[in-house]
Amino acid sequence: MRILLINPNTSQSVSDLIGSEARRAASASTQIEVVTAPFGVAYIETRFEALIGAYAGATLAAEHEARHDALVIAAFGDPGLAGIREAVDIPVLGLTESALMSACMLGSRFSIIAISRRITAWYRETVQANGLVDRLASIRCLNQPLRDIGAVQEDHESRLRELCLQAVEQDGADVLIIAGAPLAGLARSIRADIPVPLVDGVSSAVRHAETLIALAPGRARGGSYAPPPRKPNQGLSAPMQALLARERPPV
Amino acid sequence: MRILLINPNTSQSVSDLIGSEARRAASASTQIEVVTAPFGVAYIETRFEALIGAYAGATLAAEHEARHDALVIAAFGDPGLAGIREAVDIPVLGLTESALMSACMLGSRFSIIAISRRITAWYRETVQANGLVDRLASIRCLNQPLRDIGAVQEDHESRLRELCLQAVEQDGADVLIIAGAPLAGLARSIRADIPVPLVDGVSSAVRHAETLIALAPGRARGGSYAPPPRKPNQGLSAPMQALLARERPPV
Amino acid sequence: MRILLINPNTSQSVSDLIGSEARRAASASTQIEVVTAPFGVAYIETRFEALIGAYAGATLAAEHEARHDALVIAAFGDPGLAGIREAVDIPVLGLTESALMSACMLGSRFSIIAISRRITAWYRETVQANGLVDRLASIRCLNQPLRDIGAVQEDHESRLRELCLQAVEQDGADVLIIAGAPLAGLARSIRADIPVPLVDGVSSAVRHAETLIALAPGRARGGSYAPPPRKPNQGLSAPMQALLARERPPV
Amino acid sequence: MRILLINPNTSQSVSDLIGSEARRAASASTQIEVVTAPFGVAYIETRFEALIGAYAGATLAAEHEARHDALVIAAFGDPGLAGIREAVDIPVLGLTESALMSACMLGSRFSIIAISRRITAWYRETVQANGLVDRLASIRCLNQPLRDIGAVQEDHESRLRELCLQAVEQDGADVLIIAGAPLAGLARSIRADIPVPLVDGVSSAVRHAETLIALAPGRARGGSYAPPPRKPNQGLSAPMQALLARERPPV
Amino acid sequence: MRILLINPNTSQSVSDLIGSEARRAASASTQIEVVTAPFGVAYIETRFEALIGAYAGATLAAEHEARHDALVIAAFGDPGLAGIREAVDIPVLGLTESALMSACMLGSRFSIIAISRRITAWYRETVQANGLVDRLASIRCLNQPLRDIGAVQEDHESRLRELCLQAVEQDGADVLIIAGAPLAGLARSIRADIPVPLVDGVSSAVRHAETLIALAPGRARGGSYAPPPRKPNQGLSAPMQALLARERPPV
Amino acid sequence: MRILLINPNTSQSVSDLIGSEARRAASASTQIEVVTAPFGVAYIETRFEALIGAYAGATLAAEHEARHDALVIAAFGDPGLAGIREAVDIPVLGLTESALMSACMLGSRFSIIAISRRITAWYRETVQANGLVDRLASIRCLNQPLRDIGAVQEDHESRLRELCLQAVEQDGADVLIIAGAPLAGLARSIRADIPVPLVDGVSSAVRHAETLIALAPGRARGGSYAPPPRKPNQGLSAPMQALLARERPPV
Repeated sequence: MRILLINPNTSQSVSDLIGSEARRAASASTQIEVVTAPFGVAYIETRFEALIGAYAGATLAAEHEARHDALVIAAFGDPGLAGIREAVDIPVLGLTESALMSACMLGSRFSIIAISRRITAWYRETVQANGLVDRLASIRCLNQPLRDIGAVQEDHESRLRELCLQAVEQDGADVLIIAGAPLAGLARSIRADIPVPLVDGVSSAVRHAETLIALAPGRARGGSYAPPPRKPNQGLSAPMQALLARERPPV
Repeated sequence: MRILLINPNTSQSVSDLIGSEARRAASASTQIEVVTAPFGVAYIETRFEALIGAYAGATLAAEHEARHDALVIAAFGDPGLAGIREAVDIPVLGLTESALMSACMLGSRFSIIAISRRITAWYRETVQANGLVDRLASIRCLNQPLRDIGAVQEDHESRLRELCLQAVEQDGADVLIIAGAPLAGLARSIRADIPVPLVDGVSSAVRHAETLIALAPGRARGGSYAPPPRKPNQGLSAPMQALLARERPPV
Repeated sequence: MRILLINPNTSQSVSDLIGSEARRAASASTQIEVVTAPFGVAYIETRFEALIGAYAGATLAAEHEARHDALVIAAFGDPGLAGIREAVDIPVLGLTESALMSACMLGSRFSIIAISRRITAWYRETVQANGLVDRLASIRCLNQPLRDIGAVQEDHESRLRELCLQAVEQDGADVLIIAGAPLAGLARSIRADIPVPLVDGVSSAVRHAETLIALAPGRARGGSYAPPPRKPNQGLSAPMQALLARERPPV
Repeated sequence: MRILLINPNTSQSVSDLIGSEARRAASASTQIEVVTAPFGVAYIETRFEALIGAYAGATLAAEHEARHDALVIAAFGDPGLAGIREAVDIPVLGLTESALMSACMLGSRFSIIAISRRITAWYRETVQANGLVDRLASIRCLNQPLRDIGAVQEDHESRLRELCLQAVEQDGADVLIIAGAPLAGLARSIRADIPVPLVDGVSSAVRHAETLIALAPGRARGGSYAPPPRKPNQGLSAPMQALLARERPPV
Repeated sequence: MRILLINPNTSQSVSDLIGSEARRAASASTQIEVVTAPFGVAYIETRFEALIGAYAGATLAAEHEARHDALVIAAFGDPGLAGIREAVDIPVLGLTESALMSACMLGSRFSIIAISRRITAWYRETVQANGLVDRLASIRCLNQPLRDIGAVQEDHESRLRELCLQAVEQDGADVLIIAGAPLAGLARSIRADIPVPLVDGVSSAVRHAETLIALAPGRARGGSYAPPPRKPNQGLSAPMQALLARERPPV
Repeated sequence: MRILLINPNTSQSVSDLIGSEARRAASASTQIEVVTAPFGVAYIETRFEALIGAYAGATLAAEHEARHDALVIAAFGDPGLAGIREAVDIPVLGLTESALMSACMLGSRFSIIAISRRITAWYRETVQANGLVDRLASIRCLNQPLRDIGAVQEDHESRLRELCLQAVEQDGADVLIIAGAPLAGLARSIRADIPVPLVDGVSSAVRHAETLIALAPGRARGGSYAPPPRKPNQGLSAPMQALLARERPPV
């Protein structure tokens, strides 16, 4: 199986983190590739930045889809996920959605641990769009400027542990989701000290991608995830044009 | 007041419809301008097309904001609305959100009349993202291929009237929203024959834009609609870069 | 345009506040009139007092409707709003509903700043009846006896500012609604110091009333906001009787 | 125990129906009294009529409370219920709320059988205000003009049976609520032919009133159902004034 | 009337408490019997223990149903309630459901006072399954080890009073539910000192059981509470087998 | 990896179906074992039968846990899932939950295809308990007596295909869940003819079980999925007693 992770942020250091956590999580025979957004911002925290990342991710998806069996939109908040899922012919997963699915199989209510206060509104709306806000116990976050987006884990580990414990003891979380690509791998390293299961977006997405490939549930040709109907378009990249013009077999 | 309507579709004929309905609805002293997406698809019906339209709209917003007092994202479904609202310094409105606000002041439950079956999932999710799905009585739609996106009203008027009556009689709608820029103005022309208030997105958005300009509630410098924090970015258009780099006065 | 604001409280000082804020907010050509409930309580804080105010407001609406283009029920909590909307032939607006609509166009989640703890339950239920409780970040309130209902703003301005800041910093509000006719105008005077948009019920209602008059969406003759069916009644004021007996043209 | 049923409609024939069903349902030692609204409409179907009925009911509650152990607002839709509950010192019940409570103890989802299409919006909002709309399977209704509000049962019995069966077979109802004072007693007479439990508002309210009297849970002196704070009022009936002026012992 | 209370815990001391509170609450002519689970745990706090208690309760229900007019599952959390309601031919009530119904007739929002932190998740899910979580103001709980499950009231009365006051003052509760069979009777003894109505599960259930017997709404023969269809079974107790094999008259 | 599927029905033919679909779905190195409930009913359709199946499943889980890496409760409706998840030390999955998780990664709204009308209420409540009822487009079901629970697929294949198409075309489903162990494998055989992805509970559960084993998120020692606190118990099977008495390491 070949799985492509698309980092819709422009930070190569985050892509490296993602790639190494993805390879650790994948089955032995799975090949992992990571691509980084050619345009956009260093790390997405807001709706506007997510809008840019969604378009960057879509561009990369159109360009690389043909060589892979599944795509992962590798930013928590899942920018562009639902749209890209409509357009391409292979499974598309997101870090938030994947982490939520793992969490739901481990307990009733989950909390999310995040890297900045600003990012929490976007995360909350992502959980809401997944229809799972009633199971969200809380979102707890770092509240300090980040020196280096590739070094958040080292710089803030003890505060992150504290947030985890508060979510369990004060907010009633049964499971914790360590959110955001910059925290990929943290769940593994602090697991032993936290009294509830810890879920990570990257490893969840890679494993769930393998599952969707294996289950082969079929591509939507009807319903609202069928490919967009063909119609005039202009000004798009060649791969994007090709994607929109692709002929699909009828049901 | 100067209000810019941004058509995130690439169809000039739809921009013309939007512009003429907007001018009819605006106060005498308001100046209306319409711009059309330089890239994207002829008319947005799906999440993927909306993702493209959101980016096209954001690009236009960054380019033109400075000369206007408010922006309207002039496609039902409001592609990019929340993101653009964060980034620019003037009020930003959308056709769906504006129509929903008008409808909520006229009755308890509303139905939406739409131009294609495919578009309904996207509309439903937009209502949901506005937190108003419990007041949505139904979405009813045309279910035939559209000969010409600029001529939907003429081609399908009698079917559209039928859908309106069914929504009132069978679905319990107190108000009807005639959805989508291609139907701009239809509400006015069939109003006399429909037993409940009819709401149109373009005219609602223009009037609500005037209201927000007049009320001058203040620009968010805190909360989740403050401008995105400044950070490294790359590969963006010059106006987009300028927007992200703009210095704002502290509170 | 002629807009009548109906104060369902019996306090003339509050009517004066309402009138002056309404005139400040209205378009130049709009005429504002305010009437005060002839019976009821000095200011409504509870469901029982709202029940009385609803009837007082309905009586005034029946008496004065003919000379106006729109009515505003000028107490936060909107006593009698939905009922009066059914009965009269012109748009009817309420302070809460109008403020909610403004707030929804400025951010995702809003808080309400209120004048007493007792009043908060009624406000919460009003937001709930509008279907918007999932967007309510919090209600924060003064918790001291009010010396004079017409002087709440002067007496408590610094505490009100504090409540505003707490709602943004601790509760995640994107927008603040300054609630209650006795606080009409406060939003304007403290706006510069608060980091998110501030919304006021009176000015929102006046502007939205102008919008509904201009949009002319049509009067409901079907659905659940059609006028009540004619039937025997007794013991009502002459204008109320006339309203219930009025013949309306069929669709 | 002495229980007063307040008919907020002006129809004596409906009061008679209510009284006879209430006496049949009550425990042997309970005394039932019924009073009829001195002003208002013959039967309430709309929000505006409910607003009038709420005030009429409140007036009667203030006048008669002292001689009873519990009050029942005897119109489905419970006009004024929450407000009157705040003001008086004895338990206050409503037909809808009482029927909902009975239904919830008999199955998961219930349907409501109603006497007119117009009345259904008001009923739906009442269920919603009770927080139970997710358990509402459907509202089914007669859709013909009513010859005589006191004779609905005889005139429409076979259609009412049909509606009951449809709610079970097509809508998934586990329990049926026969709604509206004019249908008081119907549940008893058709019970044998309907495959699910049938609940009636009047008998439920009388029995639940006896329960609340017996349980003696205490009168609210705090929270949002404490009596309204004392404050200036004007233009109210003497009993209403006395009620608002009543001194209550502190906690 | 003969009402059987089934204690799905194995503690005889708790059965004694239940029995004495039930007898105090019942009408003079009602006969109360209590049976104790022959297998299971001393007191149920978790979903797994509730699963065991549900089966123990079902076994007792099958064995004893024939001699009674109604059953009460006498553990807060209502283990097995919905299932047993399907199977037997008489009304079945639960402590949580009954307390919720009482509370809903006394105010808008309620808090639950519980005996341990661990038990609160189960209670919350029970309220959720009743569809009433939007009216739940809070769950407050003791957070100390319990010396003796039959002596919780004496050991912790002053802390329990504190929790009650906090729920009113900090959480906005209009009504308090004293939860759990080990607290049966506490509501009565502290009522005078708490400013809102107090509801107890045992007394509510007994009174509501009398009501359902009196109302005689009919046994479900259709809908999802009809008896389970007859089909092969094995390994069940003789009374359980007899219950599943029972022939019921058609509608 | 060793995964145990627990059939809480007593039908060996259904266990055989489950086992063969599970082996087909599992990774090459995974060992699948299936055990059948020693007591209970042939196939669970109701809440009461699910209550019995939950206890039977719990008994089997206690007995067999030690030899496996994950358990699957192999009946749609997930009887006992949350309780067993608390008690044992390995991941526990259910067919419904697993199918829901797969479906949520393939589209926005899903429908469930079920084998009998009676079973649909239980399925609906299971979706509700998972917090996902807003994404449920519909439940469609066979409505004929089942000749043989092990032969439902052969007997009813064409009707099942019809139900699938109706769910897509009339109910707006993006994904279909083929529900119930007796339909295990049907998704695979009809996939080519249905225009949206088809999800099956058994194969989803097996793959998700492998994922949870691989992710190793940690066992809950706090929160509401920690093991039940040790306390007196009686009358339980030896493995169940051992499970409840097991000593766990502190955090």
